[in-house]
Amino acid sequence: MSNPTAAMLVIGDEILSGRTRDANMHYLAQELAKHGVDLREVRIVSDTRDAIVAALNALRAAHDYVVTSGGIGPTHDDITADCVAASFGVGIDVRDDARALLQAHYDRQGSELNAARLRMARIPDGATLIDNPVSVAPGFTIGNVHVMAGVPAVFEAMVASVLPTLTGGQPLLSQTLRIQRGEGDIAGPLGELAQDFPDLSIGSYPYQKDGIYGANIVIRGTDGARIDAAMARLSKLFPE
Amino acid sequence: MSNPTAAMLVIGDEILSGRTRDANMHYLAQELAKHGVDLREVRIVSDTRDAIVAALNALRAAHDYVVTSGGIGPTHDDITADCVAASFGVGIDVRDDARALLQAHYDRQGSELNAARLRMARIPDGATLIDNPVSVAPGFTIGNVHVMAGVPAVFEAMVASVLPTLTGGQPLLSQTLRIQRGEGDIAGPLGELAQDFPDLSIGSYPYQKDGIYGANIVIRGTDGARIDAAMARLSKLFPE
Repeated sequence: MSNPTAAMLVIGDEILSGRTRDANMHYLAQELAKHGVDLREVRIVSDTRDAIVAALNALRAAHDYVVTSGGIGPTHDDITADCVAASFGVGIDVRDDARALLQAHYDRQGSELNAARLRMARIPDGATLIDNPVSVAPGFTIGNVHVMAGVPAVFEAMVASVLPTLTGGQPLLSQTLRIQRGEGDIAGPLGELAQDFPDLSIGSYPYQKDGIYGANIVIRGTDGARIDAAMARLSKLFPE
Repeated sequence: MSNPTAAMLVIGDEILSGRTRDANMHYLAQELAKHGVDLREVRIVSDTRDAIVAALNALRAAHDYVVTSGGIGPTHDDITADCVAASFGVGIDVRDDARALLQAHYDRQGSELNAARLRMARIPDGATLIDNPVSVAPGFTIGNVHVMAGVPAVFEAMVASVLPTLTGGQPLLSQTLRIQRGEGDIAGPLGELAQDFPDLSIGSYPYQKDGIYGANIVIRGTDGARIDAAMARLSKLFPE
């Protein structure tokens, strides 16, 4: 029985232009692994309607869950909600419950709920809101797509809200052995080990530091006893 | 006249599992921007043949250049070269010039060019080699696809080899103004500014730190004078 699969769609010119280094992907990958959901694909696209809609259509058809990050703020370049509505072929408008959340928040702050801020209450028809305990403006879920903010603190809070609602599988477990030999020396026996444990994922991640070559061998799977067995064989193959 | 476009394909279970945080994407994004190539899309897929071939087919059809990272080492999970050959419908085998590079390298080291290491000399028919001054095993270019190693030091060296061979456009210039006001306060005038400068990309990237909300407004384009003009208007709209 395999775990549910997920994809992530990052909407972000700022990452593609090299200005910002993505943080949300790494966070989501770790949280999904703990929850037993296999993150299978990530796409990063620019803030353009066609690119967002095409990626969303492909990902939501191929995976159990899709998480998006970015593009749900009040400025002109925040077009994610409209693109999600287009992908699902539904309407989008300011919704009363979302507006009420924002109104109460800006009243408390003594700020005005102006036209720009009101854009954050535009929710595709049929979606449910995702709580934002950090800055109030909600995310939303429609079908198997969970639409979240790009600001890391808000993204992480929204992941915490949504994750318990997703059906997870077996948490992904892993063990790592660091071997100070070149990959070429260990590749043969390692390939045989991988063949003997087809239920596990055995990855080799080379490094080189100060002229020394080595590899981290990571054994991943959902059955801890099998990982122990493979790791015991690996340690015997490559003693310290 | 718009700049050539590029996509990146990261082949990496270790990123999708949350074990590793990608570094190559950020590096490539910055280098391409300097060279006048627009990075439009990044995909991260797992080390599975179908996923790699499908992503490669889509990206190489849609963009002027594709750069891949990862999966060209000697271990069983290194399947990128075979997937690239499959995508192009060409054969793949050990090639004499690649073998000679490896043979000389391992002779110098006093190591054996065993079967696993020889896998790194398997090159799709019709490809040209990409120099690897760090650890010798070459990358390769076939069609518009540039296949590079995942180890950051090697990836960066390969980018440095390939970049001068790519036809670039105007380097992407940018200026940033940090505004200590909530995005909702600046979104209206900012949207009007964006409409008045349709040749520029004006992005708003919110932050919140210690309870203070603000946004970095980034104006990007290839014409420095236009960016100056937009930045002058922006500074006048939101004085310190």
